[in-house]
Amino acid sequence: MMRPKVVLAFSGGLDTQYCAVWLREQGYDVHAITVNTGGFTPDDLAAIRTAAQRAGVANFAVVDGRGELFRDVIRYLIAANATRGGVYPLSVSAERVVQARRCAQHAVEIGAAAVAHGSTGAGNDQVRFDVALRVFAPGVQILTPIRDQSLSREQETAYLAKHNIVIPPKTTKYSVNRGLWGTTIGGVETHRSDGVLPEEAYVVTADPAQRPAAPQDVILRFDAGVPVAIDGAPSEPVALIERLNEIAARHGVGRGMHVGDTILGIKGRVAFEAPAPVTLLSAHRELEKLVLSRNQQFWKQTLGDLYGQFVHEARFFDPLMRDIEAFLISSQRRVTGDVWVRLHQGMATVLGATSEYSLMNSELALYGEASRLWTSTDAAGFSKLYGVHDELLARAGRLGDAARKGE
Amino acid sequence: MMRPKVVLAFSGGLDTQYCAVWLREQGYDVHAITVNTGGFTPDDLAAIRTAAQRAGVANFAVVDGRGELFRDVIRYLIAANATRGGVYPLSVSAERVVQARRCAQHAVEIGAAAVAHGSTGAGNDQVRFDVALRVFAPGVQILTPIRDQSLSREQETAYLAKHNIVIPPKTTKYSVNRGLWGTTIGGVETHRSDGVLPEEAYVVTADPAQRPAAPQDVILRFDAGVPVAIDGAPSEPVALIERLNEIAARHGVGRGMHVGDTILGIKGRVAFEAPAPVTLLSAHRELEKLVLSRNQQFWKQTLGDLYGQFVHEARFFDPLMRDIEAFLISSQRRVTGDVWVRLHQGMATVLGATSEYSLMNSELALYGEASRLWTSTDAAGFSKLYGVHDELLARAGRLGDAARKGE
Amino acid sequence: MMRPKVVLAFSGGLDTQYCAVWLREQGYDVHAITVNTGGFTPDDLAAIRTAAQRAGVANFAVVDGRGELFRDVIRYLIAANATRGGVYPLSVSAERVVQARRCAQHAVEIGAAAVAHGSTGAGNDQVRFDVALRVFAPGVQILTPIRDQSLSREQETAYLAKHNIVIPPKTTKYSVNRGLWGTTIGGVETHRSDGVLPEEAYVVTADPAQRPAAPQDVILRFDAGVPVAIDGAPSEPVALIERLNEIAARHGVGRGMHVGDTILGIKGRVAFEAPAPVTLLSAHRELEKLVLSRNQQFWKQTLGDLYGQFVHEARFFDPLMRDIEAFLISSQRRVTGDVWVRLHQGMATVLGATSEYSLMNSELALYGEASRLWTSTDAAGFSKLYGVHDELLARAGRLGDAARKGE
Amino acid sequence: MMRPKVVLAFSGGLDTQYCAVWLREQGYDVHAITVNTGGFTPDDLAAIRTAAQRAGVANFAVVDGRGELFRDVIRYLIAANATRGGVYPLSVSAERVVQARRCAQHAVEIGAAAVAHGSTGAGNDQVRFDVALRVFAPGVQILTPIRDQSLSREQETAYLAKHNIVIPPKTTKYSVNRGLWGTTIGGVETHRSDGVLPEEAYVVTADPAQRPAAPQDVILRFDAGVPVAIDGAPSEPVALIERLNEIAARHGVGRGMHVGDTILGIKGRVAFEAPAPVTLLSAHRELEKLVLSRNQQFWKQTLGDLYGQFVHEARFFDPLMRDIEAFLISSQRRVTGDVWVRLHQGMATVLGATSEYSLMNSELALYGEASRLWTSTDAAGFSKLYGVHDELLARAGRLGDAARKGE
Repeated sequence: MMRPKVVLAFSGGLDTQYCAVWLREQGYDVHAITVNTGGFTPDDLAAIRTAAQRAGVANFAVVDGRGELFRDVIRYLIAANATRGGVYPLSVSAERVVQARRCAQHAVEIGAAAVAHGSTGAGNDQVRFDVALRVFAPGVQILTPIRDQSLSREQETAYLAKHNIVIPPKTTKYSVNRGLWGTTIGGVETHRSDGVLPEEAYVVTADPAQRPAAPQDVILRFDAGVPVAIDGAPSEPVALIERLNEIAARHGVGRGMHVGDTILGIKGRVAFEAPAPVTLLSAHRELEKLVLSRNQQFWKQTLGDLYGQFVHEARFFDPLMRDIEAFLISSQRRVTGDVWVRLHQGMATVLGATSEYSLMNSELALYGEASRLWTSTDAAGFSKLYGVHDELLARAGRLGDAARKGE
Repeated sequence: MMRPKVVLAFSGGLDTQYCAVWLREQGYDVHAITVNTGGFTPDDLAAIRTAAQRAGVANFAVVDGRGELFRDVIRYLIAANATRGGVYPLSVSAERVVQARRCAQHAVEIGAAAVAHGSTGAGNDQVRFDVALRVFAPGVQILTPIRDQSLSREQETAYLAKHNIVIPPKTTKYSVNRGLWGTTIGGVETHRSDGVLPEEAYVVTADPAQRPAAPQDVILRFDAGVPVAIDGAPSEPVALIERLNEIAARHGVGRGMHVGDTILGIKGRVAFEAPAPVTLLSAHRELEKLVLSRNQQFWKQTLGDLYGQFVHEARFFDPLMRDIEAFLISSQRRVTGDVWVRLHQGMATVLGATSEYSLMNSELALYGEASRLWTSTDAAGFSKLYGVHDELLARAGRLGDAARKGE
Repeated sequence: MMRPKVVLAFSGGLDTQYCAVWLREQGYDVHAITVNTGGFTPDDLAAIRTAAQRAGVANFAVVDGRGELFRDVIRYLIAANATRGGVYPLSVSAERVVQARRCAQHAVEIGAAAVAHGSTGAGNDQVRFDVALRVFAPGVQILTPIRDQSLSREQETAYLAKHNIVIPPKTTKYSVNRGLWGTTIGGVETHRSDGVLPEEAYVVTADPAQRPAAPQDVILRFDAGVPVAIDGAPSEPVALIERLNEIAARHGVGRGMHVGDTILGIKGRVAFEAPAPVTLLSAHRELEKLVLSRNQQFWKQTLGDLYGQFVHEARFFDPLMRDIEAFLISSQRRVTGDVWVRLHQGMATVLGATSEYSLMNSELALYGEASRLWTSTDAAGFSKLYGVHDELLARAGRLGDAARKGE
Repeated sequence: MMRPKVVLAFSGGLDTQYCAVWLREQGYDVHAITVNTGGFTPDDLAAIRTAAQRAGVANFAVVDGRGELFRDVIRYLIAANATRGGVYPLSVSAERVVQARRCAQHAVEIGAAAVAHGSTGAGNDQVRFDVALRVFAPGVQILTPIRDQSLSREQETAYLAKHNIVIPPKTTKYSVNRGLWGTTIGGVETHRSDGVLPEEAYVVTADPAQRPAAPQDVILRFDAGVPVAIDGAPSEPVALIERLNEIAARHGVGRGMHVGDTILGIKGRVAFEAPAPVTLLSAHRELEKLVLSRNQQFWKQTLGDLYGQFVHEARFFDPLMRDIEAFLISSQRRVTGDVWVRLHQGMATVLGATSEYSLMNSELALYGEASRLWTSTDAAGFSKLYGVHDELLARAGRLGDAARKGE
């Protein structure tokens, strides 16, 4: 008789190794899948494969999800200038969308009876996985051994040891999630609101002591809101982001700390390193200022914040997100041009930008000059009427207050 | 017979000297007033007084508007985390609110027939002055000689020379507006979208070459959203901002460039130096993350952006602004605590924060720990129901698409 | 030994009678409480008391929550012009806020070990009660026998019969929730999206056949957004609403159907009868148009919709709601005046309004007249500059499109 | 030598007849154009033609703009559920967009030196025309004789008489603007905030005394948000609206009064009759409730209000409007289905709706039933976690308040 299949979202860490063995022991054929959303070296992937095989999975696959991650999420995060709390570029939650959806699709393709993920009951990821699985693999059972069993690290290690898998002791005090759109770091210092991570906790960006003394300028080109070239060299977005991550990381760009709200209602603090995202978002935002109307900018910001919040809060599959994406795509029609960014001592500073659609085009109008677009009389008339509403409101307020007092 | 009085908003520059003389020549008693919203040294103020007297004004007064500027505008800009375009802390427009209103009030007090200001017809300030004057000095005539006459620098200089006032040649290529909440700089480079200001254009912040090698940490304390102490020393807000401006300027903190939209519909670019505003806004925002609900943060951001936009666009006197201020005051009830900020090489980095109202209080709940607030079963139930709406939407979409195709 | 106390939110219906007996049988002293948020006759309250005593409660209390309901919720719903989906005036959820909070406070006062409510696991009310209880009675256990046990009507009836309580058979097919701020009706027809309730299902408003042929006009006076008089007779808000409910019901005003979203993610449909709310909200909205700035109206609408959504979705205790209330109170400063409303054949039509703060005051400006506030030249200048941004955007678009094609 | 051409937006009324003659007298070849956006009978159009010819225009053309009006504006107003102030369906401003753009395009096509319109300096229309002309006919001069000359009715009549054109005395005290998307009426009563129009002022809807005693039900079908059939008969949108206007007008549906804000800052009051718009907007909104997510509904409402405001305020050509349209189109994908509406005694009441995409589909989940989608345990877990944030905020508030008092 055939054993039922379970698709397991596999990272190669202790939790998902435990899941693999435990699911096998429950009678499942375990189909482990690692969705590569960036941050893995070939060695990392080889080690994950080894771990999967050691755990006795029926099948193991690595899926390259980076292109999909850019196309379906990052592209819109850039268009939205999306950060959490003004600083954090949503590194983890963007990845989870793609990972969870791919696992669900894989389950449907192979006719799996269940999908398993290694999330605990404490954080956001359980919800991100559960929602995506219910949407894309309706009727498929969701298994969450780590959440259900609430085991300690020691208990998991002991269980694996009984199944002849030796987990080496931890070599770091920090838990790191590394991906295309940034790396997050948690540790004892992030459990407090005032803890400061030591230098050795950072894994991507250069120490202050090792950053180049001289600044480095890069030119980023966008076409309809999509980054398409760096220093004049055309590039696919994923390759461009990876290249920019390397360059900006040498200058220590993209570090930060953020206190955020989890879906479950508690606060969490996280350190992050996101050299390319921080650089690209700054560049994109400044280019937009040149080409968008003032009303576009205001409403893009509100909808963009909302888009980021929904990505974070596992609301990616709400149809509202498709509507916002349509809005964002429309808004990017003119977001084409070049942006000069200086990378230096931890900062990415936009030096300037040009665009075919620039509203500071010298053929149009120049701020501060005697304008060719209107006369003094026009300006005086405009200025008078601009204030009529406030003037009447002030008068009505005085009349009303007086009438009320007279009662 | 008595000559009619005109109140003149007087900066001591070429334009307002021209206005003073020209208005006197039209038969007015000129009551010049300089509203000090920060950025003036005693020498600056003495020079302005001299210029006013030389221009033959009937009266000259300096009014200290800094306390009012904080109380009526900056306090709310901090509460709102308000910047334009994610970077510029609204240095100029905040000042104009207070300056224009004070001029209007002065005109009413002394029974002036008119108020004059030296704005051109090209920019935002004309509107900011005109609106405030109409609201606070109803029925008083507004005179704008510079806007009306569209004179060149040479023409104004020649006119003043005829009246025995010698204007020395310009010593700088840059026009600078310096105040408590920041300094703005315009020049030939800001007339382009890609011009870079030379070091000598900056007047407040240290050159990269002269910044201290070592970082400096400051502790800022807020009480209900108002900065009340620096490094443990209680301080009135205005003094605190001035002190912080000095400290942060030494590290080059607060420089930036911004392309913005003017009220009249064209784009303008400006450089700014705002050491204290940039530092305070970062500190305040991170403290808020510790103590506000997630919904407060989202809506504060949208209303805060709007508040900043309305300050910029001369909408300060719309009653909506009072409503937003009531919202902001309410939101700040718990924004009390200490924030550690590192100043180094042009950056202000928040290291951490603590608060009596902290939601990361160890007596409450810790992110990432097995939670004391709920069980695995609760989390699984929550996660399932959290996704029910998306799950149903996905199903309804499939049913609907199928039905439609079947038609 | 003392039996532990449980506070039971008691409506006198089958579910809460079951709860009372079952909790007693578990060893609790049951303190039943009915929070009167309107809609009860003295006979109704006497019947509830009888049912409580029959169920053997240790204590029964009726608390008048109507004043609190107005002061803490309805006042803001009026200020917010809050409806769900443009039609439904949030009758039930407003009541639940007060009922659940009072139960929690009662539990704290009497030192109860637990609070019980009779909500099922299917709808919104369980969440509204649970959230309020956790906020106001921290550490007190929440008991939900109906949700936990998932019993049928027959099973509950049988259980009560064993305890000598005879429940008469149902006399209506409709479940009705009647209160100060409106009545809701559910039945077999509301389980479909296209079912139409028969006339006999309605309990408050007159049948079309029985409505007066002649219209009736009422004059409602508001002071700072609060209804304070009807037809010239000053009245406390609760009494005013009750009086207006009677008058408007005779004309069949306030009926409607609404498809809404539950907190748990599914849609529900409900019929409602809300004569006074529908009349008051229309009157208040039209008065606001006379006295508020255009920007106030836009943002009040968005925040008002949000306020209503949060009341509906059990988010009433989020601190954001206090911030919005501060905004709303500020916005109502001028919402003082008289509104004429015609009640006729199911409709409440606002005929007109006047206000001390009116912006249509004849001492100010009249629309359509040659204006005393500006000249033709002013208007032409305003109109020209009003369009400059769009004009430049159009030009930049043509230039940019041409440049891009030329590449 | 050729006379320069001017395109004149021609309505056939006194003002535009005056413009035609006056422009001719200034040496222009007058190309009069009437853009039919509904509301004209063939007799009306013939009379306008006669008036144009009598005024000596070089050319007169009627352009049917109804299809364009639906495609470019009304379609989005329906998708947006757009009204002003909750009642008025933007009848006039929607038309002006199409009329002004067509005039501009006509001017470019025929190489006109100028475009003229008959707007006064008092209202919104001058701005709507000026903006559209600057966007679509850049460089073409705008002529506004009525605004510039501020003539009285008597002066215009006398001028025309001198040119052998006799204007008959006014037969109505009301100024009416009649179009596809509704009719507006102004008169002495609308110059006050409490005036009530007499029955004879209404031109479209039946008097209360003449409305049928029996209700009439219509079934409206929408496809992706567009009305496509009435009572089962497929119809083009323009024809459908015209048909529905007739039916609903017989029952007196769509009357209302609205106090609104003009672009120039003053308030204006207007009566309207919009039988089809009011009916369609109600039907569309109720259909949306069945098929959209709750988040879609909330944000559609805010963006929809904004869309309406921008149409009203001559911001139609801001690129933001194209972005919102993209959002709206996306949101309408599932807005397909049938809606039953009862027309009776001035009211349009939605009785019910069905949709292929319904979220109240019986194959999905039913509100109020013991749910097949989750268990009691799931609901309890959800409800607990739903309130964790509020619970922690309440605790943190108590801790913080205590700590602060203890200082």
